[in-house]
Amino acid sequence: MTAIRQSNVNVDLVEALRVREGFRLADVDTRATPGYGKDKAKAAEDLVVGAHEFDELQERLYAQSREDHSKPSVLLVLQAMDTAGKGGIVRHVIGATDPQGIHLKAFKKPTKDELAHDFLWRIEKNVPHPGYIGVFDRSHYEDVLIGRVRELAPPEEIERRYGAINDFERRITDEGTSIVKVMLHISPAEQKERLMQRLERPEKYWKYNPGDIDERLLWPQYMDAYQTVFDRTSTDVAPWYVVPAGRKWYARLAVQHLLLATLERLDPQWPPATFDVEAEKKRLAAT
Amino acid sequence: MTAIRQSNVNVDLVEALRVREGFRLADVDTRATPGYGKDKAKAAEDLVVGAHEFDELQERLYAQSREDHSKPSVLLVLQAMDTAGKGGIVRHVIGATDPQGIHLKAFKKPTKDELAHDFLWRIEKNVPHPGYIGVFDRSHYEDVLIGRVRELAPPEEIERRYGAINDFERRITDEGTSIVKVMLHISPAEQKERLMQRLERPEKYWKYNPGDIDERLLWPQYMDAYQTVFDRTSTDVAPWYVVPAGRKWYARLAVQHLLLATLERLDPQWPPATFDVEAEKKRLAAT
Repeated sequence: MTAIRQSNVNVDLVEALRVREGFRLADVDTRATPGYGKDKAKAAEDLVVGAHEFDELQERLYAQSREDHSKPSVLLVLQAMDTAGKGGIVRHVIGATDPQGIHLKAFKKPTKDELAHDFLWRIEKNVPHPGYIGVFDRSHYEDVLIGRVRELAPPEEIERRYGAINDFERRITDEGTSIVKVMLHISPAEQKERLMQRLERPEKYWKYNPGDIDERLLWPQYMDAYQTVFDRTSTDVAPWYVVPAGRKWYARLAVQHLLLATLERLDPQWPPATFDVEAEKKRLAAT
Repeated sequence: MTAIRQSNVNVDLVEALRVREGFRLADVDTRATPGYGKDKAKAAEDLVVGAHEFDELQERLYAQSREDHSKPSVLLVLQAMDTAGKGGIVRHVIGATDPQGIHLKAFKKPTKDELAHDFLWRIEKNVPHPGYIGVFDRSHYEDVLIGRVRELAPPEEIERRYGAINDFERRITDEGTSIVKVMLHISPAEQKERLMQRLERPEKYWKYNPGDIDERLLWPQYMDAYQTVFDRTSTDVAPWYVVPAGRKWYARLAVQHLLLATLERLDPQWPPATFDVEAEKKRLAAT
């Protein structure tokens, strides 16, 4: 007797954000709200409704893998220029569910040890286990983004990586991890405003790094590198979604719906008892 | 110009729960609400107020350690009999803040690799880094609880562990980790009711394990083992708090206030800029 859950997923939104052949990053309006005609106040309400569904689906996903390790996991990959709002997504979207089922990993500048291995080595170690929702705050894509822009590896190595990424993502998908790849997209003007806020508010100083401006000066090169990422790695098994993030409330709602769409497709079920329920009731009653 | 934050901490509650010399676990009423005279509805409101303060203090704690690794961390140790509500604490108290600043570790039955090392080996690896709030769902205390009750080690080894734990906790406290040790306390009758609920609701089957009854049958032995833990390891640097958990709403509020009291004592501050703010504003404006 399974209750039929009503889906809250905005399918138009999910479809509108998907990177398909011919996609041009330069054509994206960072203040747009594709697939969503309502305003900020309504979006806040919708986010709460979605949070409840997200929470239940996450618990089911986790529960069904406890005994059966062939059950799936989900991996959210977050990429963005500085200040685009990755942290807010983790806090407000992922933060709405039980921390016990989340595997969150922020990838920083690689350590010496990490650099001594293939670029996917540290990634592989953080692929979520069955039942978990993994969140990558930055990811293997850094190795073809800053890696490319800053020439941190020879061109032929950068070139090799796109194929290696596709092979890797296909493999972990085959092993049961559904990947949701999101780029949060803002404009240089929006970044300037947000960086300035960090410089104007002492409680934000810690989020500011002078190196942010050095990266900012390479904006066109980064956009080229992102376009190449989309051209080369938006596959059927692991498509990219570009989320306009000029309006934070839209970006949060959009990422939530991308996750909900994935979870609904997986349709996780409460697992059956692995014991004799009536016999256990009697045992318990006798204590 | 630092705004003076108003403390929301219920000091009476914190004091009432602290294990001091002469404490007797057998005397604790698991349905009591020490230091809190209000009801469930009011507690829900107070939990929301506390969550906002917890969230800000957590962010400050995290922020101040980004550049300065001599800054403190917090470690919440959760111990309890099955069904006492550890999971609910993680979800409803810890879940109220940014997952990025939380290091959550659930300690299960030790692996072969873990058993080949001293019992503190796997614990040590999970001591929270500066700025983090660590949460242990079960802990090194299992090694003197189930370890003692089930005789998983010789008596002299169990005996050795109390001192080893005190030494360990003093050392990590000296290194900057404030430890909050909590036992959630329920009665055998309350456990029976909660286990029965798991057997009556198919969406709860996954939380039930026939082994839970085997442990339940050893309740008096476990209470003795807990009493010994309190007698031997409730120290000035790392005291225990026994939280009546027959009413979940009280237990959540109580653990939140224990954490708030610790965080307020640490009084984390937004860190100063590590760069020339005015120069950076000019650099940014010029981009």
